[in-house]
Amino acid sequence: MSFQNPVFIPGPTNIPENLRKACDMPTIDHRSPLFGTILHPARDGVRKVLKSDKAEVFIFPSTGTGGWETAVTNCLSSGDKVLAARNGMFSHRWIDLCQRHGLDVEIVEASWGAGIPVDRYEEILTADTSHQIKAVLATHNETATGVKSDIAAVRKALDAAGHPALLFVDGVSSIGSMDFRFDEWAIDVAVTGSQKGFMLPPGLAIVGFSEKAMAATKTGTLPRTFFDVHDMAKGYANNAYPYTPAVGLLNGLTEACGMLMAEGLENVFARHTRIAEGVRAAVDAWGLELCAETPDVYSDTVSAIRTPEGFNATDIVTHAAETYGVAFGVGLGDVAGKVFRIGHLGSLTDVMTLSGLATAEMCMVDLGLDIKLGAGVAAAQEYYRAHTAFAQKAAA
Amino acid sequence: MSFQNPVFIPGPTNIPENLRKACDMPTIDHRSPLFGTILHPARDGVRKVLKSDKAEVFIFPSTGTGGWETAVTNCLSSGDKVLAARNGMFSHRWIDLCQRHGLDVEIVEASWGAGIPVDRYEEILTADTSHQIKAVLATHNETATGVKSDIAAVRKALDAAGHPALLFVDGVSSIGSMDFRFDEWAIDVAVTGSQKGFMLPPGLAIVGFSEKAMAATKTGTLPRTFFDVHDMAKGYANNAYPYTPAVGLLNGLTEACGMLMAEGLENVFARHTRIAEGVRAAVDAWGLELCAETPDVYSDTVSAIRTPEGFNATDIVTHAAETYGVAFGVGLGDVAGKVFRIGHLGSLTDVMTLSGLATAEMCMVDLGLDIKLGAGVAAAQEYYRAHTAFAQKAAA
Amino acid sequence: MSFQNPVFIPGPTNIPENLRKACDMPTIDHRSPLFGTILHPARDGVRKVLKSDKAEVFIFPSTGTGGWETAVTNCLSSGDKVLAARNGMFSHRWIDLCQRHGLDVEIVEASWGAGIPVDRYEEILTADTSHQIKAVLATHNETATGVKSDIAAVRKALDAAGHPALLFVDGVSSIGSMDFRFDEWAIDVAVTGSQKGFMLPPGLAIVGFSEKAMAATKTGTLPRTFFDVHDMAKGYANNAYPYTPAVGLLNGLTEACGMLMAEGLENVFARHTRIAEGVRAAVDAWGLELCAETPDVYSDTVSAIRTPEGFNATDIVTHAAETYGVAFGVGLGDVAGKVFRIGHLGSLTDVMTLSGLATAEMCMVDLGLDIKLGAGVAAAQEYYRAHTAFAQKAAA
Amino acid sequence: MSFQNPVFIPGPTNIPENLRKACDMPTIDHRSPLFGTILHPARDGVRKVLKSDKAEVFIFPSTGTGGWETAVTNCLSSGDKVLAARNGMFSHRWIDLCQRHGLDVEIVEASWGAGIPVDRYEEILTADTSHQIKAVLATHNETATGVKSDIAAVRKALDAAGHPALLFVDGVSSIGSMDFRFDEWAIDVAVTGSQKGFMLPPGLAIVGFSEKAMAATKTGTLPRTFFDVHDMAKGYANNAYPYTPAVGLLNGLTEACGMLMAEGLENVFARHTRIAEGVRAAVDAWGLELCAETPDVYSDTVSAIRTPEGFNATDIVTHAAETYGVAFGVGLGDVAGKVFRIGHLGSLTDVMTLSGLATAEMCMVDLGLDIKLGAGVAAAQEYYRAHTAFAQKAAA
Repeated sequence: MSFQNPVFIPGPTNIPENLRKACDMPTIDHRSPLFGTILHPARDGVRKVLKSDKAEVFIFPSTGTGGWETAVTNCLSSGDKVLAARNGMFSHRWIDLCQRHGLDVEIVEASWGAGIPVDRYEEILTADTSHQIKAVLATHNETATGVKSDIAAVRKALDAAGHPALLFVDGVSSIGSMDFRFDEWAIDVAVTGSQKGFMLPPGLAIVGFSEKAMAATKTGTLPRTFFDVHDMAKGYANNAYPYTPAVGLLNGLTEACGMLMAEGLENVFARHTRIAEGVRAAVDAWGLELCAETPDVYSDTVSAIRTPEGFNATDIVTHAAETYGVAFGVGLGDVAGKVFRIGHLGSLTDVMTLSGLATAEMCMVDLGLDIKLGAGVAAAQEYYRAHTAFAQKAAA
Repeated sequence: MSFQNPVFIPGPTNIPENLRKACDMPTIDHRSPLFGTILHPARDGVRKVLKSDKAEVFIFPSTGTGGWETAVTNCLSSGDKVLAARNGMFSHRWIDLCQRHGLDVEIVEASWGAGIPVDRYEEILTADTSHQIKAVLATHNETATGVKSDIAAVRKALDAAGHPALLFVDGVSSIGSMDFRFDEWAIDVAVTGSQKGFMLPPGLAIVGFSEKAMAATKTGTLPRTFFDVHDMAKGYANNAYPYTPAVGLLNGLTEACGMLMAEGLENVFARHTRIAEGVRAAVDAWGLELCAETPDVYSDTVSAIRTPEGFNATDIVTHAAETYGVAFGVGLGDVAGKVFRIGHLGSLTDVMTLSGLATAEMCMVDLGLDIKLGAGVAAAQEYYRAHTAFAQKAAA
Repeated sequence: MSFQNPVFIPGPTNIPENLRKACDMPTIDHRSPLFGTILHPARDGVRKVLKSDKAEVFIFPSTGTGGWETAVTNCLSSGDKVLAARNGMFSHRWIDLCQRHGLDVEIVEASWGAGIPVDRYEEILTADTSHQIKAVLATHNETATGVKSDIAAVRKALDAAGHPALLFVDGVSSIGSMDFRFDEWAIDVAVTGSQKGFMLPPGLAIVGFSEKAMAATKTGTLPRTFFDVHDMAKGYANNAYPYTPAVGLLNGLTEACGMLMAEGLENVFARHTRIAEGVRAAVDAWGLELCAETPDVYSDTVSAIRTPEGFNATDIVTHAAETYGVAFGVGLGDVAGKVFRIGHLGSLTDVMTLSGLATAEMCMVDLGLDIKLGAGVAAAQEYYRAHTAFAQKAAA
Repeated sequence: MSFQNPVFIPGPTNIPENLRKACDMPTIDHRSPLFGTILHPARDGVRKVLKSDKAEVFIFPSTGTGGWETAVTNCLSSGDKVLAARNGMFSHRWIDLCQRHGLDVEIVEASWGAGIPVDRYEEILTADTSHQIKAVLATHNETATGVKSDIAAVRKALDAAGHPALLFVDGVSSIGSMDFRFDEWAIDVAVTGSQKGFMLPPGLAIVGFSEKAMAATKTGTLPRTFFDVHDMAKGYANNAYPYTPAVGLLNGLTEACGMLMAEGLENVFARHTRIAEGVRAAVDAWGLELCAETPDVYSDTVSAIRTPEGFNATDIVTHAAETYGVAFGVGLGDVAGKVFRIGHLGSLTDVMTLSGLATAEMCMVDLGLDIKLGAGVAAAQEYYRAHTAFAQKAAA
């Protein structure tokens, strides 16, 4: 394992040096007051990144999937109806989780390349006058397709329908990288993990619960222990956990939130947009298309790139790994073989991104695609250099 | 946080240098073949530590509690009857988990200081001629009381009763430190975590499933997704996970198993016994008693030490942390305030242990207990020096 | 290599976690302004630790021996006369270095166990009316014998004699651990390394030059390049080095100085005294004697302990390493085989020290010395517990 | 300090993950046998990298400059005559060192862009019939100009002249990256550091001495202590050092040599050539010229690139650091402002190199040079992709 080149998978991200060091911690007593000095700043930091004043933040030694399960098992009961759109592999998996837990999922199918069909949500919610639907699921950023959905619009749909369902948002590949407003969008449960916008190793499910979601936990009867938020809350009140916490990752999480707040969330988002725009400029220069169908749904954390008919996009990923030691993401589910993905989230620079684009170009040429070497790189370079502080000062 | 002194909590343990380095790993693509070179050796290593030829090993980004939940939700259905003994905080918590998941737990109460009452198990199993009991739970080492139970005897009780119930064993604070025989004892599900005998940071639930347990998963109907072993097995077959694996910890796990096998499991167990004997010699020299009632149940990984009536044992733990920067374990549940615990598992030397004993002595004297400084240390020193290779050669 | 037990050698010390992380740094451009943000705080920090307002601090990728050579080659010329006392291996080596560089060393022989004979210094200096002596050498703390000398008194001797010789002080095993006053004692060159009071890995020679020493460099004609302070000063003025600096160690040095200043130098010194007193109480309880002949010369960073006639003290060191995995220091030069040394400097706690004392006891008993196990430990425990904040509050 | 982008300075290089971990080591007793298990493999490893069977390898806590001083002070005496060519900043500095140590240097001036004028060496050596010249200095790779010299030819010149002078070779930026044959070229002293081909942090001077050089140390009378090879050899014979060794770096050195030998020296050299060819293809595509005047002297570890008249090449370096967070090397001495340097040695991939080239392009365009974005990248991509195992298999 040489670890020389950056990775371009859509998470886990490249881990900044200071975060690796923060996570790599000798053992401390997690039942001592010392642990409280790690736990509470981590929770406070997450709350800020969620743009929330009052979300209850829970952090499990788990992953985003565990976060989904936390949302579902704490707030809902067997047979409850939930509304969900399926527009990619990750929204599909969350739906599957709901079904396995005995929920009745009303699935809105959408194109794998489109965002959540908010109009359909509104129609269904409006029609549900008896409020059978207990929760609405929304995947903010479909990591499989590089598609961003409009969570503010989902909230508006709920409000327009006057519907009291809970709003569960999967922000796994958006939180900490793209604008996310827990309070403003009146989200009830937000779910993410440590290994995306927080730039940490995997191993944490991070969830935020609204007051309304906390209330729902009192009626939800799905069995739960490991993911029980009441046990967790009770532990937190004593600077503790109901079991052994992942202390090093929590320490890293505090540091990660500090990095994000020091850079400024809006600057972090702008950086992700800038880097993504460069990638999109390259895709355009290559004459290829994104899986995301329209600019309004372009993701700033991952680009899924369609390759020509008859070409197996997965070959690019395999070839990049074997020949150049670079990791891209394969297509999943319906778009397997049709797209390859460039992750561009977390700790990344324009310069690192250019090396990923240069690699993708070499791979595509090696595999016979009609791509001009340097073309995508040049398009991205042009975008990046025009958006430096230097260029902007020069232009002023 | 100064991290200078060793910790003496019953897990997480002190982490060996090479394991910290193995865990502190840059990001790799967990969907690439490279990941398989980390995953499979980790699983193989665990299997060896379990002394099993054919256990299916599953590793979740979670903790031992998640391991309990894995056992229960994969093999059982709502309303199933299980048999369990309660002789400490951790057996209590597992029972609680079962109850929350809708199981009907037949609880055998036992003294907090005694092992599993195997005779009662046998009576109950023999009486259960209709085989309503689907699983028998056994906590191999009660971390709260420093009590070891006889799993071979539990197996014999099942066999004597001719009972087909599954045998679930919590080996969280025994596996990798005390003798554990998955195959010989015909265990069906064994549960542990990364932060005890494996000497790693917390963050992994590690479970072994027998063929019979795997068969039971086909009929178990408790809802599960995150802890579903079929999803996990399907992933493993493709060098992958159903979600993002904790790659660094898995890498550490391979290294940890390698360390244990290089030292030799029997040598590892003998080392734990030697260190524990020194601690027990010190306790005796102090004129104190263990929570564990009889020598046959003395744990080799943790000693819970009773303090005199009217003395709050927790004060020792608080004082050690505040005044000497040393972490011991508090008493939990029924023995809260009555015992303090010295963890002596994982990566520990005689020399490190002596510093813990010396600290405990200072604390007890500071807090007014009638202890002679150096007395316990001398007893342990005598034991340790008599059991070095040097002494044994000299004696020969 | 297991790295579990602390080391008790008189340097390099145990390295605190944060210093290891500060040193373990990716490559930066040492010719960029970024380097200046590491270099200058390191130099400023050292100046504070030296208790100097105006010393010129130079830091070489080298060791204390290189620091000696820096002092000599920059300020002196072939044939120059210097005055030096020989009372241990390290003062001997510095004398040897002078002789190899063609200096005429007037050697004052002293007992290996006594401090610098300041009266003899004064007599010689007073007699040297033509000021042939260009420099006076003084080893503040003889690491080989655990003997501290009185540098203030050496300064007084120079002043009483009205002698203009430069005062060179080897503070390798004192600076950062024992009181050291560059300005007040009017020291001209102070020499130390990274691996003692600064608690860092070896690899840096750290020297402070007075204004008078800087003036002497203009006349000193001994050949020098690597250790030339003018090249170094010229580099520093440009945020640079005359060659490639040890950037990570410099980064660690800044952090180390920050730790020392945060604890407070006087608190650091008091901690070293407390820990040393505990060791001395143990030595006394063992019925042994220090190499240091009188209490006024007892070192707070290392204790050289005499073993009985006919016993090879080095056997303790060998046995401790082989049997218990603990490192002590052997006797060197005239006291080889007659003493073993316990280093107690840098990052050390009372608790760690007790484990060293317990080990020494086991070794001595193993090797047939008439020592009572636990006796030294108890004496040290008594001292340490009587000097905690807790005890002092209780006593008040 | 963000450490995200690779560095492109001609040393210190990017440090591979495993080497950072090997260097970041807790303290061990450097006077114990354990130290021998680090020291000797490091020396053996270096010997192999030097392609020598019998060189005496000495490793000082120092830098390459200290290595130069080691060669000079151990083998020569004040007033001795040496022959040296000056064709760049580093050969200049070595000459300066000789002069400061009182040697009589016969300087052959050469163009900064040309190699050592071997013909002139031969003329001078042939003319020196009385063998006044005691040593011939040769800088194998001038880091300042990116110029490689022909050491085999220097050896031939000595042999042709039948001259017994010692051959001292500065291999600081060649050893471990470019072909270097200590035995075949009959080198007497080879000098390098840890931070170039060995890919380690700075802090070690690494030298190899031939038998003839060892013999010369018996007559060399220049004063020396820190750099004395006899003290060092005496220490090594006892698994020790004359002072405190840089244990972590030595441990890293063993690991580094292992990496180089595992890849295979010839493969390492071929990799450096391939990466360098890509850089040179980019330079050509930019319409710029190397400082190195002819292809036979092109360095495979660093390229110094001439910028157009009237343009300050240093601006590129400053701009790259400030705007893109990328480090290139500035021009030094006679070529300051006229060249900027791209270091491409040590741990580097084609992909990393492309990001450096992309950055250089953006900088040059930002600063007004007439460069086409992507042009140099494309030229390098073409070269790299044509030289992968994949392409070569496809072509076969």
